[in-house]
Amino acid sequence: MPGELSKYLNISRVEEEFNQLAAFTDPKRPYTRRAFTPLYDRSRKWLAAQMEKSGLTARFDSAGNLIGTLPGSTDKAPAIMVGSHIDTVYEGGRFDGIIGVLAALEASRIIQSSNKKLSRPLEIVDFTSEEPSDFGISTIGSRAMAGILTEKELNYTNEAGKTLKEALHEVGGNPNEIEKSKRNVGALHAYLELHIEQGRVLEANKTSIAIVESIVGIHRYKVTVQGRPDHAGTTPMEMRSDALVSASIIVEAVETISRELSSNDYYFVGTVGLMHVRPNSSNVIPGEAEMVFEFRSDNYNLLRQATEMIDEKIKKLETMRNITISKDTISETKPLKTNQKIKELQKEACQKLNHDFLTLPSGAGHDSVLIGKIAPIGMFFVPSKDGRSHCPEEWTDFYHITKGIEVLTQTILELDNTELLPYD
Amino acid sequence: MPGELSKYLNISRVEEEFNQLAAFTDPKRPYTRRAFTPLYDRSRKWLAAQMEKSGLTARFDSAGNLIGTLPGSTDKAPAIMVGSHIDTVYEGGRFDGIIGVLAALEASRIIQSSNKKLSRPLEIVDFTSEEPSDFGISTIGSRAMAGILTEKELNYTNEAGKTLKEALHEVGGNPNEIEKSKRNVGALHAYLELHIEQGRVLEANKTSIAIVESIVGIHRYKVTVQGRPDHAGTTPMEMRSDALVSASIIVEAVETISRELSSNDYYFVGTVGLMHVRPNSSNVIPGEAEMVFEFRSDNYNLLRQATEMIDEKIKKLETMRNITISKDTISETKPLKTNQKIKELQKEACQKLNHDFLTLPSGAGHDSVLIGKIAPIGMFFVPSKDGRSHCPEEWTDFYHITKGIEVLTQTILELDNTELLPYD
Repeated sequence: MPGELSKYLNISRVEEEFNQLAAFTDPKRPYTRRAFTPLYDRSRKWLAAQMEKSGLTARFDSAGNLIGTLPGSTDKAPAIMVGSHIDTVYEGGRFDGIIGVLAALEASRIIQSSNKKLSRPLEIVDFTSEEPSDFGISTIGSRAMAGILTEKELNYTNEAGKTLKEALHEVGGNPNEIEKSKRNVGALHAYLELHIEQGRVLEANKTSIAIVESIVGIHRYKVTVQGRPDHAGTTPMEMRSDALVSASIIVEAVETISRELSSNDYYFVGTVGLMHVRPNSSNVIPGEAEMVFEFRSDNYNLLRQATEMIDEKIKKLETMRNITISKDTISETKPLKTNQKIKELQKEACQKLNHDFLTLPSGAGHDSVLIGKIAPIGMFFVPSKDGRSHCPEEWTDFYHITKGIEVLTQTILELDNTELLPYD
Repeated sequence: MPGELSKYLNISRVEEEFNQLAAFTDPKRPYTRRAFTPLYDRSRKWLAAQMEKSGLTARFDSAGNLIGTLPGSTDKAPAIMVGSHIDTVYEGGRFDGIIGVLAALEASRIIQSSNKKLSRPLEIVDFTSEEPSDFGISTIGSRAMAGILTEKELNYTNEAGKTLKEALHEVGGNPNEIEKSKRNVGALHAYLELHIEQGRVLEANKTSIAIVESIVGIHRYKVTVQGRPDHAGTTPMEMRSDALVSASIIVEAVETISRELSSNDYYFVGTVGLMHVRPNSSNVIPGEAEMVFEFRSDNYNLLRQATEMIDEKIKKLETMRNITISKDTISETKPLKTNQKIKELQKEACQKLNHDFLTLPSGAGHDSVLIGKIAPIGMFFVPSKDGRSHCPEEWTDFYHITKGIEVLTQTILELDNTELLPYD
């Protein structure tokens, strides 16, 4: 780190916190710390204590977001918010979200230990339930902060019949005053998030840091192919309505279209991740195949184009083969650009610190997508070993995390003195 | 029926027996009469009584096959055996196998009521457990009669831990003397079976009778495609090892090859009926796809050719895509020709009776495949309504069954006086 800041970074302290947090896990399903469980509640009370020990004032907002604040020198200046989340998927990992919160906390300590005094308040945030919750929605805390968590969603229930409202109460929220967690446009100066890449591009390029250019839009659909479940031995080829053959042609089309639309200019991926065949018996021609496919891109027009190409393919299949195909939209979100000015600051920070970096789109969604609705955002990625994520093997070397904390801290300092256009 | 025989056929009597037999069903899962259940045992005791009432001598052989014998006028002449089976798959139908046994029983009554006296014994057979049993094998009774049911297979257990041996005991068999059920080559003059088509060819051709030309060989394989379960959002197209895409290419290849090899000269069908995708989650690239595919044909060379074509396709996929594919043989059986001379008699019977007929391969396996190892065989098909089989909707109009019984009876009479070459 340029000049005197570098010596205040204590990576052992971060690693110690990392290990302590990893210990808050379901012992039978490592590393599982599901939002709204007593385990989750205990881990956040521990985290609030770490914030207080680090000189921040910790509080839970009405959406259960845990926020540690370092006051700024200028009264009422819009805050810089930095963070992520510490809940996990089932049998998830120790880094996804978590390292973003711990990096932010370390940054706040570096700034305090140095002589740098921010003019703006610095808020370190651990958002409530970023991962898909047992209530059927994800990014609950950042949704509330963006002001779009609805009363209807608050009444969603989990399998045990508990409402999200009740669950929020149990983890320190106050859902009856959910609007108090909302921040208006202008209330936050900027939001920064450091996250693991969850992919293999950084590792393949032997680079520790990526500056996130944009967060992809996701178009996701459910497709059901309806054929006829005839006897596999006695039905001649020309009398068949084989749902799996048509489904397979769609799987190939999703791949072909995605390869075609992916380029140096635009990120584009497409996947059929889920397929159910019925009756799924070796001697019966598949009568039904159900699948979920998705396209992700940083270019909205390409998403529209791909969807049209698939629709055409489906129409052709229905005409040529004796089947019917239904396609239902699960979600169609638009790509989100990160703030141009923040990206410049991020690049300058990397250059000042002499850290190589890539620019990458984020293929996954994050809390930043929601906060992007009310504030300028910026994101850093650090490498995921072997690209693994959402599994116990998830790993990022602390060598990379050190660099990540350095560029994050440097960017916070620069941001403090930089005016931003919210939709830049 | 030519001359005087026709008036002895009583289709109401057959329909009455059909309804009585259909009533032996698990009331919660119509029409389920699984082999080796108490229900199965009761239904066969009822059938044995029907045989006795019809002038036959009923007995269970050591493999539990129920056999009703009408003595012939010539001492020790090899018998004509006619029949099928009365066990069902889970939630199966009322015709598969069953109508073959009832048609044979009616034929024996027609012959007795007329003045025709057979020189050879006529054996009406209900084979033990033709359908896949809970012990992991099918065609148990006909296997034993062909002398290939092994001691190892007799010790197979069902989920409750009961051995096939014990189960055979409970339904009247004597598995400790299993060899007593074996018939040597030459011991049977011929075996005839009437069966439902389980397909739609007869119905599409508005024809009541098919003479079975051959029974297809089945080549069945399990294929496992191993890729990498990466994040669907963060893994660029060129870094993927998507198991489902490769599996889909194999599904299409199985269809393309089968269409190519199917012709007016040879029957050929190929199916991927079963596919499991893992982890099968919409936002994870499939890391593994497991499937079972099969080819069926009346031409063994075509079966070998298709298997080679798939092997080549698999090799190409492994070279071009970053995946590994394993292929395991489940079964590779050869096609079986029905007896040439019997087919001529079947055709003559149809012509004498003025019944239109088709010649068809059997795409499904039957007890006749096993009995074909020790005796000349012939088969008739009657139409399946809408091609449905192995489901409660299975149906064949008694209009067709009447014609079926007529040609079956006529063929038995002709067979009695015709010398056959066993491998003709």
